[in-house]
Amino acid sequence: MFFKKKEEEFFSELRKDAVSGEWILVTAGRAKRPQEFAPPKREPAQLIASCPFEDARMNGFDPLLWYPHPKSLKKDQLEEWFLQVILNKYPAVMPHEDRTCAVAGEDGPYERIDGVGYHEVVITRPHERSLGEMTAEEAALVMRSYRERYAALKKDPCISYILVFHNHGREAGASISHPHSQIIALPIIPPDVQRSVHGSMVFYEAHAACIHCRMISWELEDGRRIVYENKDFLVIAPYASRISFELRMYPKEHDPYFDLLSEKKLESSADALTAALRKLGTALNDPPYNFFIHTAPTSSAMEHYHWHIEILPKTSVPAGLELGAGVDVTVVKPEDVPGLLAA
Amino acid sequence: MFFKKKEEEFFSELRKDAVSGEWILVTAGRAKRPQEFAPPKREPAQLIASCPFEDARMNGFDPLLWYPHPKSLKKDQLEEWFLQVILNKYPAVMPHEDRTCAVAGEDGPYERIDGVGYHEVVITRPHERSLGEMTAEEAALVMRSYRERYAALKKDPCISYILVFHNHGREAGASISHPHSQIIALPIIPPDVQRSVHGSMVFYEAHAACIHCRMISWELEDGRRIVYENKDFLVIAPYASRISFELRMYPKEHDPYFDLLSEKKLESSADALTAALRKLGTALNDPPYNFFIHTAPTSSAMEHYHWHIEILPKTSVPAGLELGAGVDVTVVKPEDVPGLLAA
Repeated sequence: MFFKKKEEEFFSELRKDAVSGEWILVTAGRAKRPQEFAPPKREPAQLIASCPFEDARMNGFDPLLWYPHPKSLKKDQLEEWFLQVILNKYPAVMPHEDRTCAVAGEDGPYERIDGVGYHEVVITRPHERSLGEMTAEEAALVMRSYRERYAALKKDPCISYILVFHNHGREAGASISHPHSQIIALPIIPPDVQRSVHGSMVFYEAHAACIHCRMISWELEDGRRIVYENKDFLVIAPYASRISFELRMYPKEHDPYFDLLSEKKLESSADALTAALRKLGTALNDPPYNFFIHTAPTSSAMEHYHWHIEILPKTSVPAGLELGAGVDVTVVKPEDVPGLLAA
Repeated sequence: MFFKKKEEEFFSELRKDAVSGEWILVTAGRAKRPQEFAPPKREPAQLIASCPFEDARMNGFDPLLWYPHPKSLKKDQLEEWFLQVILNKYPAVMPHEDRTCAVAGEDGPYERIDGVGYHEVVITRPHERSLGEMTAEEAALVMRSYRERYAALKKDPCISYILVFHNHGREAGASISHPHSQIIALPIIPPDVQRSVHGSMVFYEAHAACIHCRMISWELEDGRRIVYENKDFLVIAPYASRISFELRMYPKEHDPYFDLLSEKKLESSADALTAALRKLGTALNDPPYNFFIHTAPTSSAMEHYHWHIEILPKTSVPAGLELGAGVDVTVVKPEDVPGLLAA
């Protein structure tokens, strides 16, 4: 909604996320150039000599999973690794030694549960080449590793939710600059996830349809927020963006479960993800960012859900309004993002 | 819960906020010294010559509200101002010109509502002296201004929630270094607030008691998380902290409504708030921080709620786990915070 404010146009609108029910605030005085959002240049990459992610046998152990480079000629030798998954040396959660599940308890008026789970790191070999700079063939190995480790961790009955995420740049929480992703398996379904799952279930029961599918149809028809698409995936600037230049990537066909991603879609998902990251990197000068996969919880059938990836460049820091009211603020209209990200 | 991990102790525990129902993760390998959390030194204060908050008639207008310094001899002259409240020059929300309320609408599968509301700035005069460096008498004027403007804005029937917040330091979102707070009045009750209000109502209906009061009794008895108290207010490191060194300040007596804060408690609230900020400033080397007031929404009777202030020093940036799962992470046990903040 535009208000008349002196000579300028003033735009301020609260928008509701159709799945989670969260409200965000779009407040944009006037269109800005992407450069105005470029955060301070990221710190240079850490020195390769002191990088803990260079050695083929990190911490002296064989990886949980590894792939050679697609073009490697000696595909059975670990020294030819292009990607490997290892245990996080500084885990946020860990399995019990005896493999028993997390124990819930009380502490006065409070509830607690043991931090039982798994915390793994997915490392790609080039020290400075980020995911957005990889070929689709290389990035497909990253997607494949996510899928394989997700499927392996899902088998543990102690696990309720698995989050795959990637922090790029120190300002986005990456303490090691060498490109890596993380997979964390938790003994609870986090409330944010629960709300989105619930929101999609309510819609499914009322309309016998998937809310994400309806949004995808609408976005394809409306067209104003499309940033990229290929035959299998759609990348949009979401209507209720949580931060300026947020992007979301959806499989076009209904698909609740990331871990059932087919072989033929591995490469098209990698194509869409790298295209999205490349557009952000070019327009915003290699910004720090986080991305993560939202997929149905592991515990039961969730046919109503629709997996997707959310990409949040660090174009602002959460301040009083975001922290105090949970209302995220974006100062770029999502409808302006495709144009601003066009090369 | 401690796990045995090689020789070190490994601590990882999920804790549930008793009011909002959110889960946070406490993961602490070993006690750390507060200095290890000191964020990069904040940028120096901006030059006073180019500071927009120096002039008695900012932008050429009289303030909405102003107070002289408590020790001023010419209390009726604006030039003697110690605090003033003005309209934000770059508001996130604005009233309609004709004072009509926000209009809700739809946009395909999405819901939206006009960003109708008020956005004010509370400025204290000293260019570099932050709230934690003020006397209780001075800080009481800040609390008074919050209360007065809150009460004035509450009268507008278009308003559903009013958030008072303060950003300190650029890394916490303060684009102007001169100390100031903000008051934003919104046409919706934000979902985060709604969940906490709902949580406290459910407890109230089940136990005919206030959940916050029960927590306060427990904390006073348990004692391990008390950072500061005076006769009217208690400052604790909350059991389910959202970030390392978070502090919360509660009135000890049941009180749903911040705007009904009595004259006699104005000064004790200022004493507790400045004490909390001073402790953080000393131990963490003047960290960036945000604080905000949570109080009952303006719309109806909310006897079950209990107003309080949450103080979040910027001791880490939200990354994949926080953004992707909504699980905030703290690496300092709340039980260790009082000792770490002791002078």
